[in-house]
Amino acid sequence: MNGEERLLGWLARRLPGGGLGDDTATLPARGRVVATVDQQIEAVHFAAGTDPALLGRRLLAVNLSDLAASGARPRWALVTVAAPPGFAHRRFFSSLLAACARHGVALAGGDLATAPALHLSLTLVGERERGAASLHRAAGRAGQALWLGGPVGESALGRALLERGARLERGAVQLPARLDLPAALAGAARRAVRRHLLPRPQLELGLALARARRAGAAIDLSDGLAKDLHRLCEASGVGAELDLAAVRASAPTGFAALAVALGLDPGALQLGGGEDYVLLFTLPARATPPQLPGLRRVGTLDDSERVRLRLPDGRARALPHLGWDHLEPSRRA
Amino acid sequence: MNGEERLLGWLARRLPGGGLGDDTATLPARGRVVATVDQQIEAVHFAAGTDPALLGRRLLAVNLSDLAASGARPRWALVTVAAPPGFAHRRFFSSLLAACARHGVALAGGDLATAPALHLSLTLVGERERGAASLHRAAGRAGQALWLGGPVGESALGRALLERGARLERGAVQLPARLDLPAALAGAARRAVRRHLLPRPQLELGLALARARRAGAAIDLSDGLAKDLHRLCEASGVGAELDLAAVRASAPTGFAALAVALGLDPGALQLGGGEDYVLLFTLPARATPPQLPGLRRVGTLDDSERVRLRLPDGRARALPHLGWDHLEPSRRA
Repeated sequence: MNGEERLLGWLARRLPGGGLGDDTATLPARGRVVATVDQQIEAVHFAAGTDPALLGRRLLAVNLSDLAASGARPRWALVTVAAPPGFAHRRFFSSLLAACARHGVALAGGDLATAPALHLSLTLVGERERGAASLHRAAGRAGQALWLGGPVGESALGRALLERGARLERGAVQLPARLDLPAALAGAARRAVRRHLLPRPQLELGLALARARRAGAAIDLSDGLAKDLHRLCEASGVGAELDLAAVRASAPTGFAALAVALGLDPGALQLGGGEDYVLLFTLPARATPPQLPGLRRVGTLDDSERVRLRLPDGRARALPHLGWDHLEPSRRA
Repeated sequence: MNGEERLLGWLARRLPGGGLGDDTATLPARGRVVATVDQQIEAVHFAAGTDPALLGRRLLAVNLSDLAASGARPRWALVTVAAPPGFAHRRFFSSLLAACARHGVALAGGDLATAPALHLSLTLVGERERGAASLHRAAGRAGQALWLGGPVGESALGRALLERGARLERGAVQLPARLDLPAALAGAARRAVRRHLLPRPQLELGLALARARRAGAAIDLSDGLAKDLHRLCEASGVGAELDLAAVRASAPTGFAALAVALGLDPGALQLGGGEDYVLLFTLPARATPPQLPGLRRVGTLDDSERVRLRLPDGRARALPHLGWDHLEPSRRA
């Protein structure tokens, strides 16, 4: 028995249905089917040497976030792993399967290969709940309120800390001594690292918006608030005004002070940092959002065809196109 | 507008539904949904410098072959492209979209990234036709006849020719002068190169078997006849006897002579060459196969729990586990 067959046998013992069997999986869907795919690539989306257990969780999380923005319930995953010899496949799959189980997702298929650098992809298939609406980025209308599902910029801050030597080991974040952060900021730093490595997709929020059938547009923030707001506005054919003071106020305790202590601009992190995996969504102006923690109104859609940033002093300027271009040579800062 | 947005805009103008829009695609399925995923990696599945137009067709073809083995009709594709700067995305997507259109497949989603080496993956979602059976590799039973859907080994021969300098240019195969093949073999060589670069998945055969509801097991031959027959037998809990004379007779004209001229063992190519993308399937002993060209009976399943190769002189020996291990460092010969 070779390495692949041993791994597939090991996987089969851990899958409820008894393994991957055929190359093609049957997905017993009842509702309307939705699907999304995302890749995670060594030296592009994560540093070489990142713990395979973290990669398993993160690979699922970025896809769950896309599905959250559609308001669907995740059901099945198909995964590809192209890895160099020696990759800890079982550590990766144990973590991925545990994360799948937490979210009611069945691993339904996949493809394994050997390659010089680690490349992971996951296709997530979900179902629309009966009676629930579909959420789309193109459904924004002038006059709607713009809402953030959670803090932005913290993931980018966590990425900066990892680049400066922070580590997540056995569930605890270790900060390098040379950072020399005051105790008040060390807590914020640990939280930022965790948010970057272990994003928490807003599935409940997406399902609640889809059930309420009142939401306008929704998009998950993967490439930065500024860039994804531009996308939402362009798809919806509307303009917007984003309130910088409200965005700032959405930051968790210590965020701005920690960014400054690291020589980073907190506003730039919030607008262009990326990998936040929280939802940006719109609601009718007077509608009450779902009863979930951390939601904050941060602006308004309008018919101006421009996307503006309202500064705390009352002036407005064009919102810059900060954020990631996936076809530029280096996605990581 | 950056490179990614320009490419997505270009794609949107070529997609019937008006573009990829959201990160999540809605798939309006009517029947039971099936899904499969495969990756194609530079220097693993294809040589660096391979024409992106060939890669687009081939990426779809290997997935279509998996779906053919399930008896389902292909409907939607989600694709990931991780490519170095300068990759001819439009040439790749033009070819992929044309191949999708030929098979009734809609490009429903995807993810783009930059990476040092080219990595492609495609998730193909299909539907079971109403009243049609599912085909599975585990459905083989003792006493059934074993059938090949087409020739095996020719793709591996084509790969060997490419490694020796053969090229497909503007649709025509160019053979290097130093090969110095007699005219009778040059035609076989050109056909082998085409079969390797442009495999023709047996969708009609898969659909016909599923509609007839008589098929036992089915599997598509991607890793070599010997290895995939072992898989079928193991999944079905049966043994088999493979008739080498029948396998030899399934080879197209000139195959064996060409292999020998290149210093290769035709039998080893047929049993272990891989990437054939034809179906291996079983039927009740006296059943007539679908009326399609190129089908050949090559053996019988039995209850021996062993997989044997019947030699032309009447002796039998254990069928070796020739073929590819996807977790070994180099998949290519």
